[in-house]
Amino acid sequence: MLIVQKYGGTSVGSLERIENVAKRVAKARKEGNDLVVVVSAMSGETNKLIEYAKHFSKTPSKREMDMLLSSGERVTASLLAIALHEMGVDAVALTGRQAGIRTDNTHTYARIESIDTTAIRRELEQGKVVIVAGFQGINEHGEVTTLGRGGSDLSAVALAGALHADACEIYSDVDGVYTTDPRIEPKAKKLDYISYDEMLELSSLGAKVLQNRSVELAKKMGVKIIAKSSFSDGPGTIIAEEDEEMMEEVVVSGIALDKNQARVSLRDVADRPGIAAEIFNRLAEEEINVDMIIQNASREGTTNLGFTVPQSELERAKKAIAGFDHEFGSADYDENVCKVSIVGVGMKSHSGIAAKAFTAMAQSNINIEMISTSEIKVSMIIDEKYGELAVRVLHETYELDK
Amino acid sequence: MLIVQKYGGTSVGSLERIENVAKRVAKARKEGNDLVVVVSAMSGETNKLIEYAKHFSKTPSKREMDMLLSSGERVTASLLAIALHEMGVDAVALTGRQAGIRTDNTHTYARIESIDTTAIRRELEQGKVVIVAGFQGINEHGEVTTLGRGGSDLSAVALAGALHADACEIYSDVDGVYTTDPRIEPKAKKLDYISYDEMLELSSLGAKVLQNRSVELAKKMGVKIIAKSSFSDGPGTIIAEEDEEMMEEVVVSGIALDKNQARVSLRDVADRPGIAAEIFNRLAEEEINVDMIIQNASREGTTNLGFTVPQSELERAKKAIAGFDHEFGSADYDENVCKVSIVGVGMKSHSGIAAKAFTAMAQSNINIEMISTSEIKVSMIIDEKYGELAVRVLHETYELDK
Repeated sequence: MLIVQKYGGTSVGSLERIENVAKRVAKARKEGNDLVVVVSAMSGETNKLIEYAKHFSKTPSKREMDMLLSSGERVTASLLAIALHEMGVDAVALTGRQAGIRTDNTHTYARIESIDTTAIRRELEQGKVVIVAGFQGINEHGEVTTLGRGGSDLSAVALAGALHADACEIYSDVDGVYTTDPRIEPKAKKLDYISYDEMLELSSLGAKVLQNRSVELAKKMGVKIIAKSSFSDGPGTIIAEEDEEMMEEVVVSGIALDKNQARVSLRDVADRPGIAAEIFNRLAEEEINVDMIIQNASREGTTNLGFTVPQSELERAKKAIAGFDHEFGSADYDENVCKVSIVGVGMKSHSGIAAKAFTAMAQSNINIEMISTSEIKVSMIIDEKYGELAVRVLHETYELDK
Repeated sequence: MLIVQKYGGTSVGSLERIENVAKRVAKARKEGNDLVVVVSAMSGETNKLIEYAKHFSKTPSKREMDMLLSSGERVTASLLAIALHEMGVDAVALTGRQAGIRTDNTHTYARIESIDTTAIRRELEQGKVVIVAGFQGINEHGEVTTLGRGGSDLSAVALAGALHADACEIYSDVDGVYTTDPRIEPKAKKLDYISYDEMLELSSLGAKVLQNRSVELAKKMGVKIIAKSSFSDGPGTIIAEEDEEMMEEVVVSGIALDKNQARVSLRDVADRPGIAAEIFNRLAEEEINVDMIIQNASREGTTNLGFTVPQSELERAKKAIAGFDHEFGSADYDENVCKVSIVGVGMKSHSGIAAKAFTAMAQSNINIEMISTSEIKVSMIIDEKYGELAVRVLHETYELDK
């Protein structure tokens, strides 16, 4: 098997941990696998370098930031190679450039455009474990670029795709994706399997495991991801295309909670074409991140428009909306709300899932302020103080602890 | 003027010091100069990375060491560029590869083979200060190489040569080359000027300023070096080809002391061809660094052979010589000697310089155990405890404090 493994900053956060990773890699190699190992910078390193840059400038040049930040992964990659050599494992460390990772020119948030796998394949054919400095590539001018937060995951997924690897194992300090946050519901269970789409919808649950950009890329390239812990030996969670059988079995996969939500409700909005576009364009100009948006007709000629923003952006949102006050009757804000979501591909083929949620909430006397649904998700905006309770209630309702 | 500046690890040893360097660069730029600035890693960084590698292996792979160690200079280069941007100075940071520095394949001790200055010239033409990560290049396979200790100086000198720069300013924490070590002789004076050859002979004095490899390269390429302090504004010391006028004026430029010397004297060595070669080949095989070698005929058919080695290598030298004990009468060792040297290109055309030294030593009751001379140097092996005294006596003899 050809396996791409990726070890995050916490997994390589000290020399002892790098040694631990080397042992894992050596074991997988001994089992006969061909291995490409992508590594992040040692945890704390990247932030330290960012601090250094901020000492000089609030807006450091992105081109230079990329040269600066790409150094951390090179350190880890070469140290891991040295550790493997000492264990008698033939290994070679490659920079993003040497690994053939070509990106566009968007410094600090580059997109991978292509991967020339020639060098990696040559090293693999010579029986070497290929270690790749994650998070980085070069652009057409030969300049170093970085891929933004979670960039090493992207490197790993893209390499797995380009190499047609059998699996892409993403190691972190958590042992997989859970049905909900175990700090809220101790009965939360690790999922053996989750589809790309569910993972995307559960991003608040999965963020510690894998960011959306990487899940999207994996979905696009058909890369099977296995999210594992580098500190234990569990099987992890497989993130892959939805599976017919699984779909039939599991209706709801997980419950997500996002506490960083503020609600804006505009009542009696003039129901003329383009008004929503104007409002949301204005918010976008102000760089306010709008999450949920719902609209429903109320009285004749007017509509109600609701949306949520991060709590820290509510005041700016209020100001942006003030410019439209002649367009709506009244505005209502609630800073203390949260979003609780039920996610599952099984919903598509099962009716009554949403109703079951609403019933459970009613039975617990939790008032639902807003509802939004997609094919595989039901999201509810509720009073922030009921967030954890709602998660536990729903977790039990869908028997996720079973 | 096109000036190459090089700032060593101490000069960029903290964020404040990098800021200080940025101010110097900005000033030189404002004065209308075109600038290429070569930087080392922040002091301590390279040693930290070596420690990291040693944690995993006593003999880490040199290829991986190069990827590891080359990261420190990239950090400094990008930080300096960011600091300059903030001061309104257009600047761009380049890695060794981007600066066009091509080396041979000798990892950790590579030799610069060629420099393609296209990229640097393009950036200079756009009015940018070009900052280059020192100490590094790439080989023909595109792999990162480093140039060994003092490598950033080599980068600077080679770039100055390739760019036909008007000067190569080497900044460190000392403000130039002195007539002798000021810790030994407080009256030591900074030299305004010294020739390449004198600098090479005074390496023990100049080592903190510039290593021999860089002086040799500068001599070969005709690069005028100015050794300066990054912490003060003095004119520094110019290191260049010897100058006719200067030569007439200054007879002795400096006094050097090397306390790490042990003496080996072999008496009545069989005077047959090849015996010296055999002995020194054997020492070379044992990787013993022989410094001074003198031989003079004594009785008929035999000769006396003397040489010095670093004190820590004396025991190994004794063992290596033991194999030849049938070839000489007796061996005499002295672990507690030092080498004091008088250096000056003026010696070539002035007679009696050596005699003056011997007289001064005799007047101070310092016994000379061995003498060796070259065109521009007189070296004497004396009892270690008289080393500092000898330096002061000679410094006064040649009126170097005037």
